[in-house]
Amino acid sequence: MSAEKNVIVVGTGGIGTVVAYGIDFAQKSNLSIVVRRDYQKVKDVGYDIDSCDYGSVKGWKPQNIFPTVAAAAASGTVYDYVVITTKNLPDIIKVEELVEPIVTVGYTSVVLIQNGFDLCRPFFSKYPENVVISGITYCGSHNNSGNVHHTQTDKCYLGSGNNPHLPRDIQEAKTEEFVALYSNGKNNPIYITNEREYRYRKIIYNATLNTSCALTGVDTGRIELAGGLDTIVLPAMREVVAIAKADGIELPNDAINTALHLDDGEWFEPSMLVDVKKGNPIELEAILGNLLRVSKELEVDAPVLKFLYDLLKVVQYRLREKQGLFSLPKERPLSEKFYN
Amino acid sequence: MSAEKNVIVVGTGGIGTVVAYGIDFAQKSNLSIVVRRDYQKVKDVGYDIDSCDYGSVKGWKPQNIFPTVAAAAASGTVYDYVVITTKNLPDIIKVEELVEPIVTVGYTSVVLIQNGFDLCRPFFSKYPENVVISGITYCGSHNNSGNVHHTQTDKCYLGSGNNPHLPRDIQEAKTEEFVALYSNGKNNPIYITNEREYRYRKIIYNATLNTSCALTGVDTGRIELAGGLDTIVLPAMREVVAIAKADGIELPNDAINTALHLDDGEWFEPSMLVDVKKGNPIELEAILGNLLRVSKELEVDAPVLKFLYDLLKVVQYRLREKQGLFSLPKERPLSEKFYN
Repeated sequence: MSAEKNVIVVGTGGIGTVVAYGIDFAQKSNLSIVVRRDYQKVKDVGYDIDSCDYGSVKGWKPQNIFPTVAAAAASGTVYDYVVITTKNLPDIIKVEELVEPIVTVGYTSVVLIQNGFDLCRPFFSKYPENVVISGITYCGSHNNSGNVHHTQTDKCYLGSGNNPHLPRDIQEAKTEEFVALYSNGKNNPIYITNEREYRYRKIIYNATLNTSCALTGVDTGRIELAGGLDTIVLPAMREVVAIAKADGIELPNDAINTALHLDDGEWFEPSMLVDVKKGNPIELEAILGNLLRVSKELEVDAPVLKFLYDLLKVVQYRLREKQGLFSLPKERPLSEKFYN
Repeated sequence: MSAEKNVIVVGTGGIGTVVAYGIDFAQKSNLSIVVRRDYQKVKDVGYDIDSCDYGSVKGWKPQNIFPTVAAAAASGTVYDYVVITTKNLPDIIKVEELVEPIVTVGYTSVVLIQNGFDLCRPFFSKYPENVVISGITYCGSHNNSGNVHHTQTDKCYLGSGNNPHLPRDIQEAKTEEFVALYSNGKNNPIYITNEREYRYRKIIYNATLNTSCALTGVDTGRIELAGGLDTIVLPAMREVVAIAKADGIELPNDAINTALHLDDGEWFEPSMLVDVKKGNPIELEAILGNLLRVSKELEVDAPVLKFLYDLLKVVQYRLREKQGLFSLPKERPLSEKFYN
């Protein structure tokens, strides 16, 4: 382990801040962060973090704070690890393009600690000579303008995304090295060699329960009481199990039951529902879009997932309009299309 | 035609008020109305109606105004026609029970001018000796606390629901009589002998486009631009056509195209979307619930309609909770169910 390793974290929401703090706390690398929205505040007074792992942290500032990726690149630092903890919204901004200025071709390892499925693929296309590490996190944390409330321990499974253009041993070594840089005795980064399986274990919840709650506007407790688990979520979960199977991954027998009891005792609002309620875009493509592309490649029918996707695509259109990403004419344009 | 006929209209929203005014304007019957919410105001100052059919009407009051169905019954009047223009929400209140005090068994004809499909069935069970007339209206009107804005002409197709326990000719005669009582030279009630077909022609829009917009939160223009017509609405409409066919009704070749171009040029918000946005319960059972029951009886697969129904059932649960129709404990109850 060497203190010369340069790590940069892009995306400092609830999870990103905890990841960055954990790496800094480990004191095994030079840490930089990119802070877009709260840059001036963080530069001035740092973060206050109320953490289940680290206790009460006041005014934390990493060594280097940049307002943009471009500024982080202009510093001249060559980054060993670019850790991406932004929301994954490829229909709005592609992360592989966002980080281009700080990725050194053939050198930098990219670490994707994000929701979704099959996230490494666009990086393998754009950076065939770079290692990509995939992080499946179960951390729970919210960042309210520099005040971070960290409620669920930073447990993160990290595995190589398996770049088909690179030898496997190099990728595994980089993954192990990153896990070591990240580990600090208080958090729980775990090195894994079966990234795909861990993605499936998380997507079985996110592609089904998260999406159904977002669409119907209820938490995971209410969807159960309203009968939606049996009619919608369960059939969707069975499709995820079938896709995993065709992908060579036999999920545990109780995978569905475990996912459906994950929020027992809580009126829990999953991330996509929270986004819809706030009027924020949803991680639809990263979660359902990518899963459906894989199901198609594997020739597994997934009509329920497809239908959830089609409906949420309309919701995403509404959210994108609300965000001002496009605007519509006052008069509705006429369509000449003949439908039958 | 006789001035002795007693007609009562239950439900004085936008449509109900226009229907009641039209019957009163015809001057061929004694009209009563049941006004729940705005009773005192209507009793005091009547309705102001700004109407595309009748011009500007100030302070209109029918002969008899009752605050409840019970009061209308207590008046001692025997009603020839009970016209129901409430929203049809059998999961909240059953209209066949609501009007029981004013329906004289074996005498009163019930007229259902409501959204939905196969609406007469519960009346045939509860009142096997009564005629039920079904009205498919294309009237457009809003009632804002006694100020009625009537924008689309009162065009209403009226046909016998065909009570299997009664001779057909009696039912047709009653339907014709009601159309005559209702017609006034300015509105357009139309006597039909194929009620079921007209229900299908309207449900092809309401079961598909209306429901999809309610679920995704967009108007019929935006759902088109977002790609939802091809992925969701069109497959759902094809299922309605298939159900109609199995029911012995061949819809016109261009039925789907007509329905999909109905709101051309308008960013139109259909009724169910308006209800969801206002937090009001939706006419889910009357529209999709009844249609799916018929599809099951006819053994026609309708997976898209079923899925829309299952999702909207969860939405309805949320809307019912919001209306205060039930409340949930602070702590989410634990479920012991094993899912797989």
